[in-house]
Amino acid sequence: MRDLIIVGGGAAGLSAATYALGKQMNVLVIYEELGGKAGRRQTLSGQVAEEFLSGAEAVRLFERQLATYADRMINDSVVGVVKDSGIFRVETRGHGIHESPTVIVATGASPIALDVPGGREFSGYGIGYSVATHAHLLAGKTVAVVGATVRSLRGVAELARTATRVYLVAPDAQGLDTPYARALRRYPHVEMLGGYQVQEVVGAQSVDQLVVAHGEEVRRLNVDAVFVDLGLRPNSEMVRQIGQTNQDGFIWVDDRNATTVPGLFAAGDVTTTFGEQILIAIGDGARAALSAYDYLLAWLPSHQDLPAD
Amino acid sequence: MRDLIIVGGGAAGLSAATYALGKQMNVLVIYEELGGKAGRRQTLSGQVAEEFLSGAEAVRLFERQLATYADRMINDSVVGVVKDSGIFRVETRGHGIHESPTVIVATGASPIALDVPGGREFSGYGIGYSVATHAHLLAGKTVAVVGATVRSLRGVAELARTATRVYLVAPDAQGLDTPYARALRRYPHVEMLGGYQVQEVVGAQSVDQLVVAHGEEVRRLNVDAVFVDLGLRPNSEMVRQIGQTNQDGFIWVDDRNATTVPGLFAAGDVTTTFGEQILIAIGDGARAALSAYDYLLAWLPSHQDLPAD
Repeated sequence: MRDLIIVGGGAAGLSAATYALGKQMNVLVIYEELGGKAGRRQTLSGQVAEEFLSGAEAVRLFERQLATYADRMINDSVVGVVKDSGIFRVETRGHGIHESPTVIVATGASPIALDVPGGREFSGYGIGYSVATHAHLLAGKTVAVVGATVRSLRGVAELARTATRVYLVAPDAQGLDTPYARALRRYPHVEMLGGYQVQEVVGAQSVDQLVVAHGEEVRRLNVDAVFVDLGLRPNSEMVRQIGQTNQDGFIWVDDRNATTVPGLFAAGDVTTTFGEQILIAIGDGARAALSAYDYLLAWLPSHQDLPAD
Repeated sequence: MRDLIIVGGGAAGLSAATYALGKQMNVLVIYEELGGKAGRRQTLSGQVAEEFLSGAEAVRLFERQLATYADRMINDSVVGVVKDSGIFRVETRGHGIHESPTVIVATGASPIALDVPGGREFSGYGIGYSVATHAHLLAGKTVAVVGATVRSLRGVAELARTATRVYLVAPDAQGLDTPYARALRRYPHVEMLGGYQVQEVVGAQSVDQLVVAHGEEVRRLNVDAVFVDLGLRPNSEMVRQIGQTNQDGFIWVDDRNATTVPGLFAAGDVTTTFGEQILIAIGDGARAALSAYDYLLAWLPSHQDLPAD
């Protein structure tokens, strides 16, 4: 039996694993992909250097450190997590069942893709899913945000600080009727296109045009990038039977990254916490590992073969 | 006026500053000391290499990046923070008053020192204040923890996993009468000394002996290190007039690192959050900076000279 099983190989999972190894815990990491979104950069036409992401170097350092622990890493999918007599049984697709008194879920969230011609082709080449992560690339450029949530409007506000022109394409115009949306509309370089649908993304090396339509009217917006904000799907299926999630499936955690199930912790974008940023996921991963370790320290004395008090 | 003023130069403050610079915010950092506890390592006799601390390299990287922004850094003490008409006025001892709509307090906490002969002399040379940070150095060694809080007992549990012998010296024996303390006492290599007072720390290069007494009885414990857990004092004086703290003076923050005062954020050991770990402080510092940025993005449209809606 392990001390700790971590599910997920992104910033939160790798930070948790590094922290747990530093604590000499017998940890197992089960991951589908290493690096998570810290490895997903944007490349725009004319861009001279690889995009800089705060915290991405730390994630690469974690990857290199963990690469020396082959017996602690399994590249596989987790199909289910159950708890029985205080022990979690973590079932993988191809590597059997692994047991541990503590588990950290750090499986992230997947953005809903733009399902139009060019929508997937330009992902990473002008199509992005997080303004907060990539906005710094758009200084002096033209950009569109697709969506009408609070998160979309926040993205417009951030881009408006440095971009030359910002379009908000809101298929459902309802979200544009808020005081904040009205305040943003006062910026002369912000244009809000309520009721427009995205038809196509056009480009050569990276995005050049976003084609949108409202009824008969078609507009071809010349843009350097498009941020898609149609929702995030948390990868929490494997624990929805046992842990509490919110209505969208994000795992509920407290300020110690503990879920509603004793011994089960979660960190990063799969949780209800605020951030979606690499440095924040690193911190929360370490916090989840410390919490799991604390849980283990409290659990061990009564589960080890010791003389009676 | 700045966009953001950060008070504190430890892991949380430097992470917040790095994140804010990445967002092209006009940030000012006012610090008394750079690096915080990420720069405070333990050196024990016979130790061959500098202690490894998870996250400490990241803090050094932040320091190097910030060193190129001389106009963003002031080495001074903050004597007061007031808020007037939505703007914070941050008063320094020797560099005047600085203004900003957002402030992050990341001033850390100071452990209460062991006030006996040798108690301060060996700080960093066998006397430490955080088991969670330094326990990995004590594998195969003998160590004492001074204190009887839940944090002290957790320290004993962590050290018991790898140290050869662990003493708990509890001047006030009350904390030892709990189920968890009784469970820990079952470990054959753990000894609890309730009612003992520390008299002296003795050593050559680093700690060799801890002298404790209970009435007439004096014991000289041969130890490689002593962890002192007599309490932490948060460095929160400058905001106690405006922000809410708990009974011990730690600044209350929510899951976005916001305090009870709009525009005022806090991160790291000065807050009510769980951790006292460098990687966690890095994450929380970035989260506080993202929250301050979000606050600014919401504040700006109605405080800039824009055409009417």
